[in-house]
Amino acid sequence: MSFDRVWTDAHLATMVPRDGDPLGIIEDGAIASKDGRIAWVGRRADLPAGAAVTTRCDGAWVLPGLIDCHTHLVFAGDRAREFEMRLEGATYEQIAREGGGILSTVRATRAASEDDLVASALPRLDALLAEGVTTIEVKSGYGLDLETEARMLRAARRAAAQRAVGLQTSLLAAHAVPPEYQGRRADFARYVAQDIIPAIAAEGLADVVDAFTDSVIGFDAEETSWVFDAARAAGLPVKLHADQLRDDGGAALAARYRALSADHIEYASAEGIAAMAKAGTVGVLLPGAFYFIRETHLPDIAAMRAAGLRMALATDLNPGSSPAPSLLLMLNMACTLFRLTVAEALAGVTTHAAAALGMRDRGALAPGLRCDLALFAINRPAELCYWLGRNPCIGRVVVGQ
Amino acid sequence: MSFDRVWTDAHLATMVPRDGDPLGIIEDGAIASKDGRIAWVGRRADLPAGAAVTTRCDGAWVLPGLIDCHTHLVFAGDRAREFEMRLEGATYEQIAREGGGILSTVRATRAASEDDLVASALPRLDALLAEGVTTIEVKSGYGLDLETEARMLRAARRAAAQRAVGLQTSLLAAHAVPPEYQGRRADFARYVAQDIIPAIAAEGLADVVDAFTDSVIGFDAEETSWVFDAARAAGLPVKLHADQLRDDGGAALAARYRALSADHIEYASAEGIAAMAKAGTVGVLLPGAFYFIRETHLPDIAAMRAAGLRMALATDLNPGSSPAPSLLLMLNMACTLFRLTVAEALAGVTTHAAAALGMRDRGALAPGLRCDLALFAINRPAELCYWLGRNPCIGRVVVGQ
Ligand SMILES: [Zn+2]
Ligand SMILES: [Zn+2]
Repeated sequence: MSFDRVWTDAHLATMVPRDGDPLGIIEDGAIASKDGRIAWVGRRADLPAGAAVTTRCDGAWVLPGLIDCHTHLVFAGDRAREFEMRLEGATYEQIAREGGGILSTVRATRAASEDDLVASALPRLDALLAEGVTTIEVKSGYGLDLETEARMLRAARRAAAQRAVGLQTSLLAAHAVPPEYQGRRADFARYVAQDIIPAIAAEGLADVVDAFTDSVIGFDAEETSWVFDAARAAGLPVKLHADQLRDDGGAALAARYRALSADHIEYASAEGIAAMAKAGTVGVLLPGAFYFIRETHLPDIAAMRAAGLRMALATDLNPGSSPAPSLLLMLNMACTLFRLTVAEALAGVTTHAAAALGMRDRGALAPGLRCDLALFAINRPAELCYWLGRNPCIGRVVVGQ
Repeated sequence: MSFDRVWTDAHLATMVPRDGDPLGIIEDGAIASKDGRIAWVGRRADLPAGAAVTTRCDGAWVLPGLIDCHTHLVFAGDRAREFEMRLEGATYEQIAREGGGILSTVRATRAASEDDLVASALPRLDALLAEGVTTIEVKSGYGLDLETEARMLRAARRAAAQRAVGLQTSLLAAHAVPPEYQGRRADFARYVAQDIIPAIAAEGLADVVDAFTDSVIGFDAEETSWVFDAARAAGLPVKLHADQLRDDGGAALAARYRALSADHIEYASAEGIAAMAKAGTVGVLLPGAFYFIRETHLPDIAAMRAAGLRMALATDLNPGSSPAPSLLLMLNMACTLFRLTVAEALAGVTTHAAAALGMRDRGALAPGLRCDLALFAINRPAELCYWLGRNPCIGRVVVGQ
């Protein structure tokens, strides 16, 4: 066999379950790549002979490159002042009066150039990559008009192109109601469906369409269905911010549209969860937002397990409710706060995160998949969940390089 | 005036409160050092003329170097396997049967050489320093015999000597009862008081004596007082792990001995807190342990504020209950979980952390203090508390270098 590169002297968590081992561990293993794909995975002793550039990993653990399947990476400004005021006892009204809340991010993002957006996104992206992330999802949603939503998506593509990282962009124009549509939420949802989605799709700027459904502060089920129908007409898959603050039937709605994922789902009912599992919709858990907004209602992990729902995990990196550019921290929070097992948490940032993006070509160490690797100086995979604010990543490989 | 070095083009959070500003902010400021001390602090426009090596900070914020005043930095092994088992539903007994718990760390630490201990501590130390920490406290407490306690403290001194960092070592022999003293806790406390403390003090290995007082799993008030009396006899100040799991009167006991600090104090009563404040004992809050062990009983911050207690913040970095080598993460957790204000949290890792160590020569940007600085690429100090798992530190200065 002929390979381009070989990695040896490594322990592998392939994330391909076998023989009751959910991590598919191969101790003293080797991986070989050819043309950017994984060509061979197994025990080092079984590695076929053949010339290749060989990297000795010095006993490190190798996992599939981590996947952050839900981020709002691109935005202008931050909300540190709002955070500070709230701790000093400011009310929601006072913060709104000082221009806080999501609309402050919309204002700042509308005022930012594409170059500004790229420049401010890159350090956050670099923080994610430093921990072994090799694919990210990035949403728009702070423009809320065609021009700015497009600019955000272009900035996401440019930022990712400046680094070695896989990308999925999601158009989240139905994130909030912009000031110019105040009191006319349905009109805005129609504008998203009739104008923004077709135009963004025609330009090829979005891979997926996302929406925020919530009966109090988001779009209702009918408005969300306009958005999703428009996505369908444009040939784009959908995903949904669902049941974060109350059970609005978002999980079931996502299932009805065979969404790639329904995200947050702290309040999703067992029925909604079962519908998701049946539809193949992945559940994306976002413990950073749960922690940051001091939510106390836990997602129904028992129901998710019972339904066989694939659970992914992501940072939800955003300035308002999860200013957390650390997927490793999410591993710890998922275990500590949601009581996920180590195996569940690790699947959540690899195989199940790939499924949440509908990407069948990555998320595990298996022949034929993209050769995206993350190398860690640890003694066992559980350390990735156990340490809190420590980064043992010592290398990344993207498409074999 | 003659200076060695000057830093300009920086905003300063001096942490010297003035005119209602608890952070003592000086925008567009400058700092000058001479012989490792801060020689001048003020507005750049007012900087006296004179030759010096000048560093332009490009608009960064400069704070006093951060101080992590409570760590168990030196230990062997980790407890990732135990963490994993607990998530899979293992009982305390099963974990104990597999050799888990604090005694597993004691076993590993006793088996480790001094070189091993230094080597495993350094990456954790580097993680702290990378965030702007310039002084740390390090405890023994996983030896529980004279030889290993001494080895831990020597390892702490060696690790710190290999980096640019200030150090305080604390002898925590009264941390737990070792296996060979099982059922003879008082005998062990007498051994600590009569043998370990005098021997360690004679060798100059410890700057302070610490103990873990707890009516169920630690040492009772009488045993703790033997330890503290021995410390006094040896000329060493004391501090105390107090009221972490229940109100055992630990705060009041610490106050009675005029301890430098009482740490944890989640369950300390308002009376205990008032006694601490009166005695000048600093309260050290450890939100990482609170989070990691899923404690729900919050420290009585209102009582601390009412008493005028100085509150410090630290990582409690340790393998069992706070595997968290990130002081910045503790800033966020103190704000998010304990609702400290940004100003309180920042004082907790600067001025009040210095007070918790009894170090009057650092913790603020003021003439005469050690020139220990931390530089951050942020737009306002609140960002240090707001971001979650992000490190904006771009430089450290220790003793003017
Ligand atoms: Zn989101
Ligand atoms: Zn401790």
